[in-house]
Amino acid sequence: MDLQDKLFSAIRSINDFPVKGIIFRDITPVLKNIALFDEIIDCFADKFKDKKIDTIAGVESRGFLFAMPLAVKMNIPFAPIRKKGKLPAEKVEAAYKLEYGSAVVEMHKDAINPGDRVLIIDDLLATGGTINAATELIEKLKGIPVAAAFVITLEALRAKDGIKNKDLEIFSIIKY
Amino acid sequence: MDLQDKLFSAIRSINDFPVKGIIFRDITPVLKNIALFDEIIDCFADKFKDKKIDTIAGVESRGFLFAMPLAVKMNIPFAPIRKKGKLPAEKVEAAYKLEYGSAVVEMHKDAINPGDRVLIIDDLLATGGTINAATELIEKLKGIPVAAAFVITLEALRAKDGIKNKDLEIFSIIKY
Repeated sequence: MDLQDKLFSAIRSINDFPVKGIIFRDITPVLKNIALFDEIIDCFADKFKDKKIDTIAGVESRGFLFAMPLAVKMNIPFAPIRKKGKLPAEKVEAAYKLEYGSAVVEMHKDAINPGDRVLIIDDLLATGGTINAATELIEKLKGIPVAAAFVITLEALRAKDGIKNKDLEIFSIIKY
Repeated sequence: MDLQDKLFSAIRSINDFPVKGIIFRDITPVLKNIALFDEIIDCFADKFKDKKIDTIAGVESRGFLFAMPLAVKMNIPFAPIRKKGKLPAEKVEAAYKLEYGSAVVEMHKDAINPGDRVLIIDDLLATGGTINAATELIEKLKGIPVAAAFVITLEALRAKDGIKNKDLEIFSIIKY
């Protein structure tokens, strides 16, 4: 089986979570299967090995699970993108709408250097709101958002249409 | 320099965050220094390599940053301990007091198997409330909480006195 098929087998679909009408794609079975998890990290590392990435930005909190092992694998500094109120030092913020609800995310001002080429990692691309906010944070810090990579894209939500930075490469291992 | 000294140099102390009177120990500089980050993961892996660990449980969300790379390094399944309302499948929950505030954490019922020997990972040990809740979750699932490991312990908060499971080994790389 290729990686895509393995992921479709492993990911658990749960109806009506967190609200009625949503099919939640649960990646926790993938976290129990380290051989499969490693394949995801290898896939991302291979995809971006020639993109001169300076920083890997992980989106709290499921994005942390993939972004930090990728940073270790690629030997590239990690920068957390966190929900409002969690980061203690000087920071920038950006607001966005979620698939269900709304939120503000923040990055430390010293998380990246001006001119850094940044790869954003999250587990899932839904409406793209988080990625627009992440991109805005990186731009505020004079970094270059090169790409955003996901394990899963929910295609019905048409995120690509709503992504503001048209230079941002979007990569997803599987799509529903 | 040994790992402890490197961590004391790298970790940033921020006064009055999140509330007045608290000195916050900010580990984000460690995440930018992958060589140092790797040393932390190697330290945990070496410490627990002979403890027959079946599952590594990471506490949301900073604990995820250390627990998932450790699970990869040790080739051991990962189980997330998440804040209430985030996990979609059948789960157990436990309530606890935080250093500032209170919360409920949850684990999926299939996150561990009965009899599994579980290593809990978080970035910081403060009052021990989170670890008591994590231990309670593992016990509800008939697992064995073997140890809890942290990058940092805040000794003034005397967590060890308050940890209910006296068989739980507590390990911390540095102490303030």
